[in-house]
Amino acid sequence: MGAKTKIKLDPTKMKDWEIAYEAEKNMKTLYELAEEIGLIKEELIPYGHYIGKIDYKKVLERFKNKSNGKYIDITAITPTPLGEGKTTTLIGLVQGFGRRGKKVIGTIRQPSSGPVFNIKGSAGGGGLSQIIPLDKISLGLTGDINAVMNAHNLAMVALTARMQHEANYDDEILIKKGLKRLNIDPKRVEMGWVMDFCAQALRNIVIGLGGKMDGYLMESKFYISGASEVMAILSVAKDLKDLRERIGKIVVAFDKRGNPITTEDLEVAGAMTVLLVDALNPNLVQTIEGNPILVHTSPFGNIALGQSSIIADYTALKLADYVITESGFGAEIGFEKFWNVKCRISGLKPNAAVIVVTIKALKYHGGAPELKPGASIPKEYYEENLSWVERGCENLLHCIEIVKKSGTIPVVCINRFYTDTKNELNLVKKICENAKVRVAISDHWLKGGEGALELADAVIEACEEKNEFKHLYDLNEPVKERIEKIAKEVYKADEVIYSATAEEKIKLIEANEEIKKFPICMVKTHLSLSDDPGKKGVPKGWNLRIRDILIYKGSGFIVPVAGEIKLMPGTGSDPAYRRIDVDVNTGRVKGLF
Amino acid sequence: MGAKTKIKLDPTKMKDWEIAYEAEKNMKTLYELAEEIGLIKEELIPYGHYIGKIDYKKVLERFKNKSNGKYIDITAITPTPLGEGKTTTLIGLVQGFGRRGKKVIGTIRQPSSGPVFNIKGSAGGGGLSQIIPLDKISLGLTGDINAVMNAHNLAMVALTARMQHEANYDDEILIKKGLKRLNIDPKRVEMGWVMDFCAQALRNIVIGLGGKMDGYLMESKFYISGASEVMAILSVAKDLKDLRERIGKIVVAFDKRGNPITTEDLEVAGAMTVLLVDALNPNLVQTIEGNPILVHTSPFGNIALGQSSIIADYTALKLADYVITESGFGAEIGFEKFWNVKCRISGLKPNAAVIVVTIKALKYHGGAPELKPGASIPKEYYEENLSWVERGCENLLHCIEIVKKSGTIPVVCINRFYTDTKNELNLVKKICENAKVRVAISDHWLKGGEGALELADAVIEACEEKNEFKHLYDLNEPVKERIEKIAKEVYKADEVIYSATAEEKIKLIEANEEIKKFPICMVKTHLSLSDDPGKKGVPKGWNLRIRDILIYKGSGFIVPVAGEIKLMPGTGSDPAYRRIDVDVNTGRVKGLF
Repeated sequence: MGAKTKIKLDPTKMKDWEIAYEAEKNMKTLYELAEEIGLIKEELIPYGHYIGKIDYKKVLERFKNKSNGKYIDITAITPTPLGEGKTTTLIGLVQGFGRRGKKVIGTIRQPSSGPVFNIKGSAGGGGLSQIIPLDKISLGLTGDINAVMNAHNLAMVALTARMQHEANYDDEILIKKGLKRLNIDPKRVEMGWVMDFCAQALRNIVIGLGGKMDGYLMESKFYISGASEVMAILSVAKDLKDLRERIGKIVVAFDKRGNPITTEDLEVAGAMTVLLVDALNPNLVQTIEGNPILVHTSPFGNIALGQSSIIADYTALKLADYVITESGFGAEIGFEKFWNVKCRISGLKPNAAVIVVTIKALKYHGGAPELKPGASIPKEYYEENLSWVERGCENLLHCIEIVKKSGTIPVVCINRFYTDTKNELNLVKKICENAKVRVAISDHWLKGGEGALELADAVIEACEEKNEFKHLYDLNEPVKERIEKIAKEVYKADEVIYSATAEEKIKLIEANEEIKKFPICMVKTHLSLSDDPGKKGVPKGWNLRIRDILIYKGSGFIVPVAGEIKLMPGTGSDPAYRRIDVDVNTGRVKGLF
Repeated sequence: MGAKTKIKLDPTKMKDWEIAYEAEKNMKTLYELAEEIGLIKEELIPYGHYIGKIDYKKVLERFKNKSNGKYIDITAITPTPLGEGKTTTLIGLVQGFGRRGKKVIGTIRQPSSGPVFNIKGSAGGGGLSQIIPLDKISLGLTGDINAVMNAHNLAMVALTARMQHEANYDDEILIKKGLKRLNIDPKRVEMGWVMDFCAQALRNIVIGLGGKMDGYLMESKFYISGASEVMAILSVAKDLKDLRERIGKIVVAFDKRGNPITTEDLEVAGAMTVLLVDALNPNLVQTIEGNPILVHTSPFGNIALGQSSIIADYTALKLADYVITESGFGAEIGFEKFWNVKCRISGLKPNAAVIVVTIKALKYHGGAPELKPGASIPKEYYEENLSWVERGCENLLHCIEIVKKSGTIPVVCINRFYTDTKNELNLVKKICENAKVRVAISDHWLKGGEGALELADAVIEACEEKNEFKHLYDLNEPVKERIEKIAKEVYKADEVIYSATAEEKIKLIEANEEIKKFPICMVKTHLSLSDDPGKKGVPKGWNLRIRDILIYKGSGFIVPVAGEIKLMPGTGSDPAYRRIDVDVNTGRVKGLF
C-alpha cells in the first residue's frame, strides 16, 4: 500500500477541492485498490470505476480463521463548533501508517447531506489528508443513507395508513381485509419521519389534514436520517439475519393499553429490510495517497450512535494489520459510546485511542472568545496565549482519563495549525508527558502521511502495550445507576435529574427483562462535557437533566435525551448550498468546500 | 443481440419472480451486454455487475453524425385499474425484434416505490417478458428517484429556512447576513415536499410548529416523487447545461406582490443540480432474453409527464435501428403527452405507435363488472362475451383515432390471455381490419420474444410506411384554445369548465411571453377518457373541469389539473409490503410479485 504517484500539492495555496481533484487524476482504480488489500473480484461490487461495495459476508467467510488486526479509535477533546479535524487526522494517520509500510485500513462514517449543504461543504478530511473521489463521497456515495431514509419512512407509511384504515372501518370490515385492530394510541406514536437535511420546519408538524382518505390527523415530526433507529441498526447489525430481526423489533408506537406496536405488527419489517440489503455492505474508497478507507453508516455522535459500522470494522480487521476508526465528537460522548455500546455489541477490544486536540480548541476552553460556524475566527486565536492553552488542557486531561478508564492506551495527537507557536506546542507536550501519555505533533494537513509519521510511530508503539479493556458499567446494573456512572465519571456532573416522563420510562424499562439489559446510548450536546453547549472546559457544579428516554428495541439501546438537544438540526442563514454549483461542461461540483 | 441461452420457463406454472430469478442465472454481464450494443468501456459506469449507467454525453458525441433508428411508442386503450400490460408488451416486443435479428433497444421508466410497495410488487413486465435483475430494478435501481427527491426537498429546505430567517430578523440584520428580503407569501407557496411512497397522511400538513427557530408556521404538502417538477426536468433535459438552467427556473412560491420566487432566488439551484449529475445518465439492464433496455425517469402519466427521458431515447436511437419506448396509461393521456410535449421538446418523430388492448379491458369498457386492485377478477371475465367485447371496442377505435390524428402509424396489439376465446380475438381483429389498422395477437407473456413475432413483423412493416407527424396544437394558440383541443378532440368532452383559480392562472399565463408558449401537460385520471374515473368506454355529454393550473417553469409545462385527482396516491388496506421479505441467507427478495 501507499501512494501510487508523488504529487506536489500545497494546501497553503490550494483549496481542499483543488487538491482532491488534482489527486483524483492519479487515483487508483477500484480493482487496483481492491487487489492491494487482498480482495478477490467476487467480493467487490463496483459503483463506478473508483468506488465499490465490499461483500462483507464473503470476506468474513474466507478469512474466518484469520486473526484480527490491531484496532485503533480516533476521538477528540470536547470540540469547538468548528470541529478539531478528527476525520482529517484519521485519514492522515492511515496515510502515515501506509508510508511506514503497514497494512492499514481506515473505517469512517458517511457524510450526511444535512451538514454538507448547511455548514461543511465537503466532509472528507482536508489539506493533504483527504479521501477521494471527493464529490461522490460528499454527495450520497452509493446511496446507503437514502436506503435508511426510505426503509424508515416506509414504516411511517405503514403506521399512518393503518391508523387511517382502523379509523375508517369497523372490526367486521377490518377482519374481512385480513387486519386485526391494533388500537394505536395517536398520542403515543414514538417514531417520526426522517430526511437527510437540516429541515427545522419539519421538526414539529401536523399530518393527516383533509378527508377520511387523507390519513389520520395527528402531531408528527421529522428528524435527520442519521438519528433514525434504522441507521443505528445498520451500524450494529452483524449480518442480514441480525438486521432483519432487529428491524422487526422497532417500536413505532404504543397501543391504547400501553403495549408496544412494532414494525413486525405492521407487517412492514420485511419490506423495510429489502431496502437495506445493499446498504449492509461497506463502501471502499481511497485517501489521496492511495490507502484504503471503508465508509459506512452515519455521523451524529451527539444524537445517535455516530460510529462507523461493526460490519465495516469486522471486515477491515480481517484485511489489514491495523484498523483505524473514529467515533463522533469528543471523548465523553463519541468514545464513551464506542467503549460501552459499539465494542460491547461487536465484542472487539481497541488497542489504542488517539485523542485529537488543537491549540484553537484549548484556547477556546481556556477563555478565548466564542467561535461560530460561518463567522471568521477572532484574531486572538492566532496569537500566542499560554495561559488559555494551559487552562484548556483541563478538558484534554479529563478526556485522557476517560480513555484510560476503559483500559485503552491513549495517544494525544496535536493537530498542528500553522499559527500554533513552539511555546504553545511544547506546553501541551509537557502537560501530556507529565500525565504519562504518549503525545505527537501531527502535520498531516500540511504534509499528508509524511506529516503523520510521528503520530503513526506513537500509535504503533501504543498498540504493542498490554491493555485491559473493560466496560464502564455492567448491563445487570439498574438503568439509573448506569446513567449516573456516565454522568458522574464521564461527564463530571454532580447529579442526574429526571423529568416525570423519564421517570415513567425508567419504570417501563426496568419492568422489561429484555430492554433493561440494553446499553445506554446518550443524546447530549457535543459542545460541552455537560448538557449545556455554553459550558466550556470541565464544567463543575451542574446536574445532568434527562428530559426523556427513548427505547430503541431494534438496535437494542436505551436512549436518554439530555438537555435541549434536537434530533433535527436547523439550516442557518448562510448555508453552504449558496456556494455549491456544478460545472456544466465537466459535471464537476464546485464550491463543496 | 437476442437470447444468450435457451431457457425452459413456463409462466403458467411459475411465478414472475421465479422466472426472473431463473433467467438471472444466465444473465449477460454488463460488459457483455454493453459490447453487444456497441458501447465502449469509457461510456459505461457500472453499478454492480449487471446494471450500469451510460454516459449519454460521450455516446451522443461519438455518434453525432450517425442517423437515428426508427422510433416506436407503446400506448394502450383506457386501462382497467389492473393495467393492460403495456410494459410487458414493450419488453416482449423488444424480445421479438431481437429474435428477428434486429438491433433494438427498449426505453422504459423506472418503477416507483409507491406502487411497488402498495399494489404492484414487481414492475418489470411479467411472464416470459421481463427485465432483470428484477429486485434491483424494482427497488430503486441506481438511485435516480432518490436523487430527484433529495434535490426537490433541498429546495423546500431552502424555502422554509429563508421564510424563518426573514420572519426572525429585520432588514438590517438580513443585509448583514448577505440576504435581501424576498417577502415570500406563505399563502402562495406553490411547491410541496416529495417522497416516493403512497403516503396519504402527508398530503395536507401543517409545518413549522414550535419556537421561532423551528421553521415558519404554514400549511404544506407532500406529493409522490414522480410528480416532482424536478423529475419532469430530468425527463426533458437535453444535457447538464439545460438541466442546470431549468432547475434554476422552478417557481417555488410567489412574493407578496405576486412575483415568482425561483430556486435561483433561493440560491439553491446549483446545489440541487449537483445532486442530479449522475441521475442524468440512463440505466442499462436486459430482458430475460438478453436484449438491452434503458430505464430512466419515472412513471405517473396521469399526474406527471410519465415518459422515459429524452436523453435515454436520444442515446438509444444512436445505438439501435429500432427504439421502442412507452408512455404512461391510455392513449388520451400518455400518447397525447408523448405527441405534444415530449416529441415537441425532443424534436423526434415517431414512426409507429402500438396500442395495447386486452379482451379483459374491452369487456370492462363494454359492460362487465367492476375490477379492483387486490380483489379477485369476477368470473364473467373468463367467459366468452362478444357483445361486451364489441361495445368495448368503441374505446379502442377512439384510441386509434388519437394516434392517427398525430400522423403516426398505429398498430393494435391484442395482449392475449389464455382464457380469451377465438371468437373474441377474431372479433377484435375484424373490427381493426375494418378500421384499416394493422393488428397482431401477441403471446409474449406466455412465449416471450417467440410469441411477439407477429407483432414485431407488423411494427417493422408499419415503420416502413410514410407518415406525417404533426402536433395537435401550435404553441402560439391561446392556452384555453389548446386545452379545449385536447378536451374535445382527444378526450371527447363537450366543454371545458374552469374554476376561478384556473381562470386567474390563465390570465397570469397569457400575460407572460415565455410561459404562454409552454406545452400543456394535463393532470387527469387515467381510468377514463373523461375526468371521472367511473366513466367507461367513450363517455358522452360531459365537461372537463379544470380545478387549477400549475406552472412548471423549469420543465416548461402548463399543467391543468382536471377533476379530483391527487398528486400523492394512498396506501390501501392490503398493501403489497405485507408480502415482501428477504431471504436472510441469500439476500434475495421474496414476495415482490
